Amino acid sequence: MTVPAEARDRATRRADTLAMLGTPAIDVWVATASAAGAPHLVPVSLAWVGERVVVAVEASSVTARNLAASGVARLAVGPTRDVVMIDAVLEETVAVADREELAAAYVDQADWDPRGSTGYVFLVLRPVRVQAWREANEIAGRTLMRDGTWLLENHDVQETR
Amino acid sequence: MTVPAEARDRATRRADTLAMLGTPAIDVWVATASAAGAPHLVPVSLAWVGERVVVAVEASSVTARNLAASGVARLAVGPTRDVVMIDAVLEETVAVADREELAAAYVDQADWDPRGSTGYVFLVLRPVRVQAWREANEIAGRTLMRDGTWLLENHDVQETR
Repeated sequence: MTVPAEARDRATRRADTLAMLGTPAIDVWVATASAAGAPHLVPVSLAWVGERVVVAVEASSVTARNLAASGVARLAVGPTRDVVMIDAVLEETVAVADREELAAAYVDQADWDPRGSTGYVFLVLRPVRVQAWREANEIAGRTLMRDGTWLLENHDVQETR
Repeated sequence: MTVPAEARDRATRRADTLAMLGTPAIDVWVATASAAGAPHLVPVSLAWVGERVVVAVEASSVTARNLAASGVARLAVGPTRDVVMIDAVLEETVAVADREELAAAYVDQADWDPRGSTGYVFLVLRPVRVQAWREANEIAGRTLMRDGTWLLENHDVQETR
């Protein structure tokens, strides 16, 4: 067992989180569930566009169908020991050919263009809760966004007391 | 976009999969769902013991409660572009202090000992379907186990026709 690095403060975790979400050709694990409670999980490319996680999947995929029905997903970005966990809601579903600026933003970050494939849609996912941690010593303080709002920095909280 | 390596055959993927599952201190993404269809996803340490995925979680955790209710999980091991996806069923739940040989096997592979914490259980998960792929060119042929049975190698299928 290696000795973990010192736990990052919230401002550092938020900066690291935003940097990770903006990384070119990065993937996201998308967990969804059917109405009957069957879990699903797939890795897909992500784009971070206007504080939204945008993924492109086939409209007929389990992920798209689960999200259309439930409206919620749990996302993970990064390796298991430097993770960003996002609980998100489906904001909109857009056929990949239907909105040029969204497709351009997606293609700019992802390493493929879904417009070359048939039947793909963009799922635009709005984060509601964001957590980030590396090792066990970062479990405390892992929540960076709650109810859709980034939490204040510790010093901000102290200043406004 | 990089040019992907040549697609691996089934025997190679199975060997790579077993090697990955036996890696010391490796983690697994565990996706579960509540009866109401809320998805959950966490990364935890795994041990591969007797063809079962063994994880240790708090008995009160969302993962343990979802699995107790539904009996099913979808697991992912490896990075997003060298992934092993496992659909699994809960075979048994064992308090970490209750079975010495299971705990010994877990601790031998994982990099922590859950017996040092309070309220942890081992979830013993039996794979039903196993898939492995790296890039898009490996989507075909990704299924290595179906209905709990490892699929025959291609040459075996041909020999027994």
